[in-house]
Amino acid sequence: MPQHFADRLLAACRARGNALCVGLDPRWEQLPEEIRARHALGTLEAMAGAYEEFCLRVLEVVAPLVAVVKPQSAFFEACGPAGLAALQAVLRRARERGLITILDSKRNDIASTAEAYADAVFAGTFCDAKRDPVWPADAMTINPYLGRDAVEPFLTSARKVGAGVFVLVRTSNKGAGQFQDLVCTGKPLYRHVAEAVAAWSAENPGTSGFGDVGAVVGATHPAELAQLRELTPGVVFLVPGYGAQGGSAADVAAAFRSDGAGAIVNSSRGIIAAFKPAESRWEQAVERATRSAIADLAQYVPLTSRLS
Amino acid sequence: MPQHFADRLLAACRARGNALCVGLDPRWEQLPEEIRARHALGTLEAMAGAYEEFCLRVLEVVAPLVAVVKPQSAFFEACGPAGLAALQAVLRRARERGLITILDSKRNDIASTAEAYADAVFAGTFCDAKRDPVWPADAMTINPYLGRDAVEPFLTSARKVGAGVFVLVRTSNKGAGQFQDLVCTGKPLYRHVAEAVAAWSAENPGTSGFGDVGAVVGATHPAELAQLRELTPGVVFLVPGYGAQGGSAADVAAAFRSDGAGAIVNSSRGIIAAFKPAESRWEQAVERATRSAIADLAQYVPLTSRLS
Repeated sequence: MPQHFADRLLAACRARGNALCVGLDPRWEQLPEEIRARHALGTLEAMAGAYEEFCLRVLEVVAPLVAVVKPQSAFFEACGPAGLAALQAVLRRARERGLITILDSKRNDIASTAEAYADAVFAGTFCDAKRDPVWPADAMTINPYLGRDAVEPFLTSARKVGAGVFVLVRTSNKGAGQFQDLVCTGKPLYRHVAEAVAAWSAENPGTSGFGDVGAVVGATHPAELAQLRELTPGVVFLVPGYGAQGGSAADVAAAFRSDGAGAIVNSSRGIIAAFKPAESRWEQAVERATRSAIADLAQYVPLTSRLS
Repeated sequence: MPQHFADRLLAACRARGNALCVGLDPRWEQLPEEIRARHALGTLEAMAGAYEEFCLRVLEVVAPLVAVVKPQSAFFEACGPAGLAALQAVLRRARERGLITILDSKRNDIASTAEAYADAVFAGTFCDAKRDPVWPADAMTINPYLGRDAVEPFLTSARKVGAGVFVLVRTSNKGAGQFQDLVCTGKPLYRHVAEAVAAWSAENPGTSGFGDVGAVVGATHPAELAQLRELTPGVVFLVPGYGAQGGSAADVAAAFRSDGAGAIVNSSRGIIAAFKPAESRWEQAVERATRSAIADLAQYVPLTSRLS
């Protein structure tokens, strides 16, 4: 049996002494000029090449410091097939460097289609001779709107390889509440989703007690974060919204249990755009921003390194 | 100004005299043996090549008969970058053949990321010199869970080019009700989403009176379909679940207004898998299945060709 996703995640965070996840959301206008200049402008292939070079170099900087990275599929998809090849290269390199990878693609569909999405990331697309994952990641984000039967193929596929999924519960965007906060039979929709996630997660707990189905809960809603932490103690939270989106380290502290476990905190722009494009020593700026985010979180988050 | 999406869609259905949409969901095990044999087995590139050949040949068969096709992104993504190149080829050929294309990818994310997804399909990814859509489609499916601010970039991008979006409202899977049927302040969640869709759609009505924001409502829930048709008269429905998933022509009739407008009905497996893989004259089977679905729908659906 492959090792359980939550156990691997927790051990990796413990080894690094922090729960920071670096989001890889490359945007052309934020790339170092040095990299943009090297990739001939004006084609999607060039853009993809620049994204790949940038992300691979970011991986070299952050791999010794953090346990988890989260490539955002949208920016790679925006470059066409070459962008997807870059995404593959980034996912593979991250894995080679020992990083845990979360593919942020927020997929879902009816079960027979969801299976294709899931196997492409986890168990591998079936194509006669071999069965390798196309977009190899240790976890991916998925959308709950279609209900459990659409989530099922992701769980089945992930569980074959010791991977995990993170289900959108309370997203970090300003307008998240339009549907997520609607009160349904006495509690908001996002709590119904959170309770479902807790039940799915409890089906397959690791030795840590955490399950392999996590929840995406935005740092921009600290009250909900605290309430959900209480409600779903066995669910790992992936917390976006820290840093550039406005969530502070104090805000995200509520995502953690008192033993320091229970969440990973994502920062994308705050780290990978922590420099002016003209800066030549941009990798040092990325390293400084990563160390600074780790120190900032350590002020409020119980030290993960203290976990036995 | 580009012509309005709903006007184009309605005119195209009127010209063909039907509201059938052919879903392009290629699956290796359902492909004609003739095509599988021609593409060396065992690699994702071969699989992608087979999907491309199959879908392009299906397009030749159905283009004279129907107005709309809907490629399912998941199956192309499952083949890696080569699969995405095949998806591009299929979208481009469909457009050349005068078909209206709906990219079924059910995307969404926070606004700054949603913009990348949207521009890749509609207004085009910005890459200095030119701005072409990467996955050119006339419409795409999106997930509403994140709320309006995440939907906004899709509307903005689509409206630049006279395209449309279809928002998941009541999906066709068996477990759709787990969250979609939760009663929130007196009505189920899917009705809240439907009302939001109606409001977004009403922001930009075409001369037909229909807006450019449609709703995905499964044929497998005929009662909800009828109720939603009543509730949102200016919203075009994309109706999956007819055929292989169990919805009948009588079930989908409720999606249409009495003037024959208001919906397109998707059939995927019922058409593109209407033959045994060993059959050599599979294109004739696809044509028969398409004509048969059109005739089946015509029994219950007011004739779109009668629309002035």
